[in-house]
Amino acid sequence: MILSALITSVGINFGLCLLFFTLYSILRKQPGNITVYAPRLVAEGKAKEGGHFNLERLLPTAGWVRKAWEPSEEDFLSSSGLDAFVFMRIIIFSLKVFAIGGIIGMSVLLPINYMGSQLTDDSDFQHKSLDSFSISNVNNGSNRLWIHFCAAYVFTGVVCYLLYYEYGYISSKRIACFYSSEPQPQPHQFTLVVRGIPVPPGSTCNDTVEQFFREYHPSTYLCHSVVRRSHKLQSLVNDADKLYKRLTHLKHKNDAPKRQRRDGCLGLFGRKVDVVDHYERRLGDLEDNLRVEQSSLATKEVGAAFVSFKTRFGAAIALHIQESVNPTEWITEKAPHPHDVYWPFFTVSFVKRWISRLVVFVACTSLTILFLIPVAIVQGLTHLDQLETWFPFLKGILRLSVVSQVITGYLPSLILQMFLSCVPPTMIMLSSLQGYLSCSQIQKSACTKVLWFTIWNIFFANVLSGSALYRVNIFLEPKEIPRVLGEAVPSQASFFIAYVVTSGWTTIASELFQLTKLLSNFLSRIFGKNGDVDFEPPSIPYHSEIPRIRLFGLLGVTYFILAPLILPFLLVYFCLGYIIFRNQLLKVYVPKFETGGEFWPTVHNSTIFSLVLMHIIAIGIFGLKKLPLASGLTLPLPILTLLFNEYCQNRFYPIFKDYPAESLIKKDRADQNQHNMSEFYDKLASAYNDPALIPVQYSERSDSNRSPLLHSS
Amino acid sequence: MILSALITSVGINFGLCLLFFTLYSILRKQPGNITVYAPRLVAEGKAKEGGHFNLERLLPTAGWVRKAWEPSEEDFLSSSGLDAFVFMRIIIFSLKVFAIGGIIGMSVLLPINYMGSQLTDDSDFQHKSLDSFSISNVNNGSNRLWIHFCAAYVFTGVVCYLLYYEYGYISSKRIACFYSSEPQPQPHQFTLVVRGIPVPPGSTCNDTVEQFFREYHPSTYLCHSVVRRSHKLQSLVNDADKLYKRLTHLKHKNDAPKRQRRDGCLGLFGRKVDVVDHYERRLGDLEDNLRVEQSSLATKEVGAAFVSFKTRFGAAIALHIQESVNPTEWITEKAPHPHDVYWPFFTVSFVKRWISRLVVFVACTSLTILFLIPVAIVQGLTHLDQLETWFPFLKGILRLSVVSQVITGYLPSLILQMFLSCVPPTMIMLSSLQGYLSCSQIQKSACTKVLWFTIWNIFFANVLSGSALYRVNIFLEPKEIPRVLGEAVPSQASFFIAYVVTSGWTTIASELFQLTKLLSNFLSRIFGKNGDVDFEPPSIPYHSEIPRIRLFGLLGVTYFILAPLILPFLLVYFCLGYIIFRNQLLKVYVPKFETGGEFWPTVHNSTIFSLVLMHIIAIGIFGLKKLPLASGLTLPLPILTLLFNEYCQNRFYPIFKDYPAESLIKKDRADQNQHNMSEFYDKLASAYNDPALIPVQYSERSDSNRSPLLHSS
Repeated sequence: MILSALITSVGINFGLCLLFFTLYSILRKQPGNITVYAPRLVAEGKAKEGGHFNLERLLPTAGWVRKAWEPSEEDFLSSSGLDAFVFMRIIIFSLKVFAIGGIIGMSVLLPINYMGSQLTDDSDFQHKSLDSFSISNVNNGSNRLWIHFCAAYVFTGVVCYLLYYEYGYISSKRIACFYSSEPQPQPHQFTLVVRGIPVPPGSTCNDTVEQFFREYHPSTYLCHSVVRRSHKLQSLVNDADKLYKRLTHLKHKNDAPKRQRRDGCLGLFGRKVDVVDHYERRLGDLEDNLRVEQSSLATKEVGAAFVSFKTRFGAAIALHIQESVNPTEWITEKAPHPHDVYWPFFTVSFVKRWISRLVVFVACTSLTILFLIPVAIVQGLTHLDQLETWFPFLKGILRLSVVSQVITGYLPSLILQMFLSCVPPTMIMLSSLQGYLSCSQIQKSACTKVLWFTIWNIFFANVLSGSALYRVNIFLEPKEIPRVLGEAVPSQASFFIAYVVTSGWTTIASELFQLTKLLSNFLSRIFGKNGDVDFEPPSIPYHSEIPRIRLFGLLGVTYFILAPLILPFLLVYFCLGYIIFRNQLLKVYVPKFETGGEFWPTVHNSTIFSLVLMHIIAIGIFGLKKLPLASGLTLPLPILTLLFNEYCQNRFYPIFKDYPAESLIKKDRADQNQHNMSEFYDKLASAYNDPALIPVQYSERSDSNRSPLLHSS
Repeated sequence: MILSALITSVGINFGLCLLFFTLYSILRKQPGNITVYAPRLVAEGKAKEGGHFNLERLLPTAGWVRKAWEPSEEDFLSSSGLDAFVFMRIIIFSLKVFAIGGIIGMSVLLPINYMGSQLTDDSDFQHKSLDSFSISNVNNGSNRLWIHFCAAYVFTGVVCYLLYYEYGYISSKRIACFYSSEPQPQPHQFTLVVRGIPVPPGSTCNDTVEQFFREYHPSTYLCHSVVRRSHKLQSLVNDADKLYKRLTHLKHKNDAPKRQRRDGCLGLFGRKVDVVDHYERRLGDLEDNLRVEQSSLATKEVGAAFVSFKTRFGAAIALHIQESVNPTEWITEKAPHPHDVYWPFFTVSFVKRWISRLVVFVACTSLTILFLIPVAIVQGLTHLDQLETWFPFLKGILRLSVVSQVITGYLPSLILQMFLSCVPPTMIMLSSLQGYLSCSQIQKSACTKVLWFTIWNIFFANVLSGSALYRVNIFLEPKEIPRVLGEAVPSQASFFIAYVVTSGWTTIASELFQLTKLLSNFLSRIFGKNGDVDFEPPSIPYHSEIPRIRLFGLLGVTYFILAPLILPFLLVYFCLGYIIFRNQLLKVYVPKFETGGEFWPTVHNSTIFSLVLMHIIAIGIFGLKKLPLASGLTLPLPILTLLFNEYCQNRFYPIFKDYPAESLIKKDRADQNQHNMSEFYDKLASAYNDPALIPVQYSERSDSNRSPLLHSS
């Protein structure tokens, strides 16, 4: 790629971003789009649809930037929760790293690279290849490479310092949030999930749990609720819930003509019926089914239970000490927040869970490694001649130059994008099969999976230039890795610079613009679908956003000494990201669950991985550049980095796993003084009842009394 | 090696063993040797020196075999402790494995190997090379190799089943021992070591600990004792103790002429003095020094303490839950038994300990990997011409053929043995630097270190035939490992068969004979040294015995399909081992500490390692034998084995790490009913006082009142 091409690309994408921003600043002010651009405010009742028309609505303004910028860190934390806060800290951390890296890179490394003469590129400045700005241009054996060597050490030091600071800062916030958290004690802090309950023959799970905890935790045990196999019931309840919502909405609207519908296929044929009557009858049937199913369910115990304790410390005791002589029985785990429980897949036995974890591991690894094969095959099908032989009738159309250009130029990348967009949901599915108990844990695990998937399939697959599978062999010859990476990575520098500008900038701008949601909202309004019946504000998909941000972080770190030209574009990306995600987290996304900042260790680890990868590449490149001494002297760097990581794991990671005794006891005592605990204990007893098991009574009541349990946050 | 040579070697070593046994059965009956052959019985007062002479004493008898055989497993367990029991189970497990392996190997594999014709060896049976009995003799591509393939699967299944059974059996014994253990509650079960105590300025460690545990464990905290830097004091106390013992011994003997000694150099010059007076004066000086040192010590707190709790469960709570928000402070660990505490190296700060662990890891790894270099260099010095140039005056002697034969033939192996015998103490030293708190933990860690050292330096160094360092490269090319091992391992079969017969049988027989101790005892009796003053029954050095036994286990497993001829000799080794170690554990070795069977997981892991190694070699050899399908079908075997190991780790390992809540609470309740706990609590308060800090009063008292504390078991 030559310089002018890069500038053109930057220009086009910059224009696109500007366009998105302008459109956003106009569209967001249209009352119809409020559920697209401020669903959170709507859900919280802070914004309302409607309002009178005025000219200001049609003018692009940057007021939203100011509003997103204004709230202090504390305000942001209290309004969006610790997870969103950590998400923003990831961006801030990246900004700091690449600001420092950018200064070093642009002011020191770039001029040195440009002054080299290894690549004989005599074209004028505008037509210079981007490689002239990369380390490839530095002469072999040149002493100037020692500056790159020093830069690697300095940059690693800076990143490690920032990592340490950030880990410490986030863990202090985590503890602070725990102390100052909610006005009411949280049921999940007092509760454990117990699995592998060995029910003796002739006894019930219920009695066994009661007896065991009364025996061994007499002073702290409070109550429990046994989990039942509620698979089928769950779907019935969902149906009923949906129906009930639609019904209340219809009743609320009360416009008779629209209530008529035909009862046949698709509502087009058959005799006309009153929709409300029709729905009410269906709801009645569903309720009957539900009651039958519920009564039969009482016997379907699965050997697992939620056990609640009187204090947080009491729960922690039962959590940390192995309960039974057989470690595969009475396995305790922290309970998730009641509305965060993932009921469908409550695998029970230790062995079953172990096997499913194994199967998922194999599936996930092979998906990650072999992903490119099916994609390549499908992409191969888009070759024109192939298509012509398969679909002879298309011959005429395919011969048109526009069509053929679109198909050959656009279709492969569209197919890749389509496959890629299936990855996060697939990973969520795999994680949910792994036997996690809560949606948040599933998302956390999927985040790690998607992260490795992204790094492998975007970074390594491109670096090993398409023939990834052929050259995957190098990972079986550890000695060769630095050399091969040292050769391959710098040659892809211009591709990744373009990738940051095109893919990075555009995705972040479209995150703001929310094109698909805007369209679906627009269509549903045109066709008069009652979109707002099922309206539920979205939550941020951490499992696809964090890996994307981390991929750009990885690119920045690995290309820091190779091609520092990438850094300014990354800085722009993170600046945009900062303001846009702040805006989205304040206005669009609702925090559905709270892991307490547990995403940070994943980010920390992936940063350490990027650093070590950079060191390996540096070792390779110094070797290729005929400076073996520098290559050898770089060796301590990855070792020191890994030791630093080890230290961080010892110093901070335990805080992210569990709360310490000190905090638990302090918080318990504060509770005893502040709250009426016996009232809370009463609530606790019913907090973990399976929502599918709550007696149904849609027909009689006017207001749903199950929803507070299902959707309270 | 040819068959007749093997038979000769077997004959010689069998003769040697018989000689050792005969000598042992005579010498053990001599009253003077009782401290060599039954020190445990002497220490327990069950055997006495002296007795009148009779002829039966001079006849070799096998009564000791019957006596060693007789005690039931339960009796053995109660008299020798769980660790000795586990040690015997290792041998029993090996016996079972190689009995089954031997039957399969000798009846199925050996005939098949012998019937092959790959190696053209036309000599008669007696002169057949041992390779004719190994897999090398099976024709390339022969379908008979499928029998070896099946044998690998069957053998792996058998070993895994036995491993599972044994792990379960030993863990049940561990729990049973915990329940039924001692008549009195054990202080170490109620106590934790707390390190990294953050002493605020202006306060003392003592107050900080008191305050912290009163605050956060008010209902279970009992008392504590702060650790002080007692390095110097310890050696003073040791000197004083020794002196005091010698003094009481002298006073006891009361034979005046021997009490005269000269006070100058080596007791040869200077004026004559009364030894008792001399010793008493020295003891007085030492006591004064001690008192001064003790009083100054009170201020040397090191930020660590022994904290005792009222119940075992209370201690477990504080152990398992992270205490402070900063995980590097208030680190809790299980306390060792009071007499098992390793006082000298009480490293305190988290960082210091972490660094020392790292340094030890590096030192240990490089010692293991690079051990052969210095040995080879020193061995190189024994070349005759080298010696002649260095020490010209030896020329005459070196020319003698006997001398030259001894030097070239014997010296190199002597040097290797000398170096090898230094390894266990070195590993003990390294482990003690790692910051373990108890002698038993140090020994356990040294055991693992010596095990890997042995496997690397005996197995791999020999397999890679001396040039280990040159071919060590293969471990950097994982793909090549099966092929290289498949080539190298079978070719060393005859060496290892000879190794089992010579080194294995002889070491086990000399373990019974205890040559060095016998000699030193003999010499001390001749020169009238007061050997019995310092008499202390030895404890079994698990860290050198277990690795040796496991090495033979590894040889048996890896050579099972390659050269089954090794198995009968291994069976003889383990049979001898069974009877001899039972004898030694009952009569010679005193259990000094009790880890509660924690050596078993190490043994389990090393067996899994042997199995996987066998599979890798099998994959290599099937490939070399032109049976790629068998090679491919062996691949699932190591994976299944590792999964089995993973399952075992989940199922049993937690039991070996800590006792479960169920057991702790049951035992606590049993205590409350059976014992006077307040009396025990009083004892507990002083149990963990540094022995060096107990007020000295040698001069006044007649009987040492410090020894019960130091040596009670």
